[in-house]
Amino acid sequence: MAQTTLPGATTGKKERHIAEILAEKQQSISISEFFTKNRHLLGFDNPRKALLTTVKEMVDNSLDACQEMKVLPEIKVILEETSPDKYKVTVEDNGPGIVRKQIPNIFAKLLYGSKFHRLKMSRGQQGIGVSASVLYGQLTTGKPVRIISKIGPTVKSHYFELHLNTKTNEPEIMKDEEREWENKDHGTKVQIELEGKYQQGKLSVDEFLQLTSISNPEATIIYKGPNAEAVEFTRASKDLPREAKEIQPHPYGVELGTLMRMLLDTKSPSLQSFLQNDFCRVSASVAKEICDKSGLEERMKPSSISRDEVEKIFNAIKQIKIMAPPTDCLSPIGEEQMLKGLKKEINAEFYAAVTRAPVVYRGFPFQLEVAIAYGGDLPKDEFARVIRYANRVPLQHQPGACALTRSIIQTAWKNYGISQSKGTLPTGPIVIMVHMASVWVPFTSESKEAVASYPEIIKEVRLAIQDAGRKLASYIRKNVRAKEQQERIGLFEKYIPELAASLATLTGEKKSEIEEELLKILKKELKGLLVEVKEAEKEEITPDGVAYGEKQKGLDNE
Amino acid sequence: MAQTTLPGATTGKKERHIAEILAEKQQSISISEFFTKNRHLLGFDNPRKALLTTVKEMVDNSLDACQEMKVLPEIKVILEETSPDKYKVTVEDNGPGIVRKQIPNIFAKLLYGSKFHRLKMSRGQQGIGVSASVLYGQLTTGKPVRIISKIGPTVKSHYFELHLNTKTNEPEIMKDEEREWENKDHGTKVQIELEGKYQQGKLSVDEFLQLTSISNPEATIIYKGPNAEAVEFTRASKDLPREAKEIQPHPYGVELGTLMRMLLDTKSPSLQSFLQNDFCRVSASVAKEICDKSGLEERMKPSSISRDEVEKIFNAIKQIKIMAPPTDCLSPIGEEQMLKGLKKEINAEFYAAVTRAPVVYRGFPFQLEVAIAYGGDLPKDEFARVIRYANRVPLQHQPGACALTRSIIQTAWKNYGISQSKGTLPTGPIVIMVHMASVWVPFTSESKEAVASYPEIIKEVRLAIQDAGRKLASYIRKNVRAKEQQERIGLFEKYIPELAASLATLTGEKKSEIEEELLKILKKELKGLLVEVKEAEKEEITPDGVAYGEKQKGLDNE
Repeated sequence: MAQTTLPGATTGKKERHIAEILAEKQQSISISEFFTKNRHLLGFDNPRKALLTTVKEMVDNSLDACQEMKVLPEIKVILEETSPDKYKVTVEDNGPGIVRKQIPNIFAKLLYGSKFHRLKMSRGQQGIGVSASVLYGQLTTGKPVRIISKIGPTVKSHYFELHLNTKTNEPEIMKDEEREWENKDHGTKVQIELEGKYQQGKLSVDEFLQLTSISNPEATIIYKGPNAEAVEFTRASKDLPREAKEIQPHPYGVELGTLMRMLLDTKSPSLQSFLQNDFCRVSASVAKEICDKSGLEERMKPSSISRDEVEKIFNAIKQIKIMAPPTDCLSPIGEEQMLKGLKKEINAEFYAAVTRAPVVYRGFPFQLEVAIAYGGDLPKDEFARVIRYANRVPLQHQPGACALTRSIIQTAWKNYGISQSKGTLPTGPIVIMVHMASVWVPFTSESKEAVASYPEIIKEVRLAIQDAGRKLASYIRKNVRAKEQQERIGLFEKYIPELAASLATLTGEKKSEIEEELLKILKKELKGLLVEVKEAEKEEITPDGVAYGEKQKGLDNE
Repeated sequence: MAQTTLPGATTGKKERHIAEILAEKQQSISISEFFTKNRHLLGFDNPRKALLTTVKEMVDNSLDACQEMKVLPEIKVILEETSPDKYKVTVEDNGPGIVRKQIPNIFAKLLYGSKFHRLKMSRGQQGIGVSASVLYGQLTTGKPVRIISKIGPTVKSHYFELHLNTKTNEPEIMKDEEREWENKDHGTKVQIELEGKYQQGKLSVDEFLQLTSISNPEATIIYKGPNAEAVEFTRASKDLPREAKEIQPHPYGVELGTLMRMLLDTKSPSLQSFLQNDFCRVSASVAKEICDKSGLEERMKPSSISRDEVEKIFNAIKQIKIMAPPTDCLSPIGEEQMLKGLKKEINAEFYAAVTRAPVVYRGFPFQLEVAIAYGGDLPKDEFARVIRYANRVPLQHQPGACALTRSIIQTAWKNYGISQSKGTLPTGPIVIMVHMASVWVPFTSESKEAVASYPEIIKEVRLAIQDAGRKLASYIRKNVRAKEQQERIGLFEKYIPELAASLATLTGEKKSEIEEELLKILKKELKGLLVEVKEAEKEEITPDGVAYGEKQKGLDNE
């Protein structure tokens, strides 16, 4: 039955092998073609999400740009319905602008940008974001993206209309002209038209902007939805975020194959200088130690090092003590700013915030922050509201797949006076804000909706929650629970005489004796309350260690 | 605070705008660099999964190749531990082989292949698969991929050693030579060394091969694990899978932007011929109808059509009745083959299989199949075992994120005599096999672990399960439940005299009267049983419509 040749497939020439016929179909696929077909990977599963994703990518870019310039962000977001289920999204910022030459590539080429290769926290990290929205807009409306950008008060602004050629993944310039942009010193305005669906409430653009305003209290965001008056999320702080500094890779995070590639590409003349120049935290003496341990000459030419020799270097690195990478590549929100952001948008009676010290995973520094709002107007009988952030960007979709949510579920909230059923979020008047700041966030997909469940991340979230939880527990103990208990005891005390009278009639005993008995019970109750509080404190010491261990096991096996 | 220029950043020249400094960092990112950093998107989250993913990609390619050649597949899989946590994976097939020129691109370039652009069911669809494993192997061991391939008995075989240059996403040829491959007419053998972890049981390579052997009963797979004797999953059928035929896109599935691009790229000279030649199911009269409805000349040159005119064509297509696409692009496993596969590997007492008719979504035909094994050796008190397939490839990870699992959970299994708690898998001695066959499977990530929850897919799975469920229900009614009931009644009947005697003593009534009374109860029980069966039958008519509707809503909002 199996033949390697197909006689029928000849064209007068000699018989051809099946492999030869199959070979004709082989071809390259451009990254744009790939994502056109697999657009759900980029967050364009449905029209509603497409609209949100587009706003998100545009606003993220604007905030990143303002942060690069150290300017307090002023961002305008406008949604207009141009025809049924078609929307024009316009986002304008006061960032540094973009030089003319770069505009086509930044907006109409996938996998292009400044953020992918550097080790420094930023909202964007993949070089896909806004170009994906341009691609989707073009696919669903055929319309180009429109950009106007100005880099300084004395420079003319540039206007572009661009398409993305999906076959080549290169920009096609439809329009490129100088324009006046009056009353504007610098900034960028982008307009994309796309098939979308606008809806308020959960997972909406409105929610996204509110959440963004919480994690970026230094920003003013003016928003005009399709059928509404403009609203302003006003700046709550004039403190700019801490500047994130770019760092070099840390030796502990590098892999064998990457090390081989780095040795081929380096400009350093010797192995020793390569180790010192191309990594962070490698001093002359550490570099020498690595060379010694791997049995290689310090003066070796990097490009002449063989695979087996690279493996020796790789193994040597693991055995040498090297200082952890610097963490000024991170720009956490900070406890004070988180509180400002939360207080501005969420009406509660108690707030607490915790910023953990940075830790390192595979050479990448990252840092966890948690803030809690409790009581006040928050609904008492619903699941806690969890607001998740990665590098200050709200994550609205796929909570179930996200390491941040999982950590919250795995925390024993009862220890902190919050009720919780097994395997679910806690219940009560509580908002839990959690922020992962990292030079590299491991998202579960290109649409950047959920953080992958690396054990190191889960652990850090847990520790951050415990810190914040203890603050909450102490507040609840002092205020809420005491108040409830007081009410309960007060009620009981009030009815003692009446109760004693009834019992006296029934039993024939003396009313005064019964009253005394009942008061004793009341005192016991008070004592019980104290014990309860103490127990809660004890539990905190070994919080949810076991439960965590068990759950982890489940995660590893999925 | 905001300055558009940075005086400190000058190099003796005049001041530079911040935008100009930022521009220097902008650059292209190669797809290989992207996936090196985001390797978890491709299924390389951890060493254990990396090993499985690699075997899977290699075996999928081999099976696809054999199917192209219409040869009964004979596949050898060998895992060897070369050093601690390093494995050499070798997969050999008897497919058509690969021509010399194509080998480097196929194995050492991401986004290259023959399967992405064509509309025809196959295991591979992205052009990423095996090259990703090569990339990962190189990253973790620095070793090249080794390939030997032979395209016919009279042709010499080619041997290659390849690296993938991550900066350019191009192959680097380390070795390229002719070699003897004795006793081999045609086929390919590939060897990748990588960091991995071998473990038996759930989510293992062993499980993958067993599941593959169920969905490909025409294949013989010989497998030698790291510390084991070779095992053979023997062929259970000599019937080759139905050949899948390539189809053209259907007009209903095309989007505005894609239509614009197709009009620019087409070789057809006129709008009418473009519609007829470049789509399926567009006859001369349908093409004419589309032109009429859009108010455009049939003879228009495709490349001269403006955006607004394309929009008219796009809207016209929607209003015209066009026959559904042909479905011979699909190659379902088929009921008989599913039963053969299941019976071969799973020991049960009852088997049922259902292959649904193909349906179309966004112009893509797809088809659902479900098979059930019940009773026998299967564990009684555990959750049903679900084995999921997409285009005959087992999906082992991320069941919770998969539309196939979701549909099973949403089915009201009680209707079919299987117990189930709300929101969980059914419980009982049952294996549920579900297969989605499609020209394009919408996976939730590049690692192809779960099918995205498109409502159309969820619905078809549900209907397929209902068909199979009814067969199961009828079996359970006739055999299992009747048998259980019989046992119960038998037991009761046996004790009636004794029970009656005791009751007579207690109550002082006549034993014979009591016995009569008890027998009446027995008869009622029998009658109840009949009613119960009838109720179950009634329920089937409106099975889980409401529950489904509710759940769907939940899904839309995630």
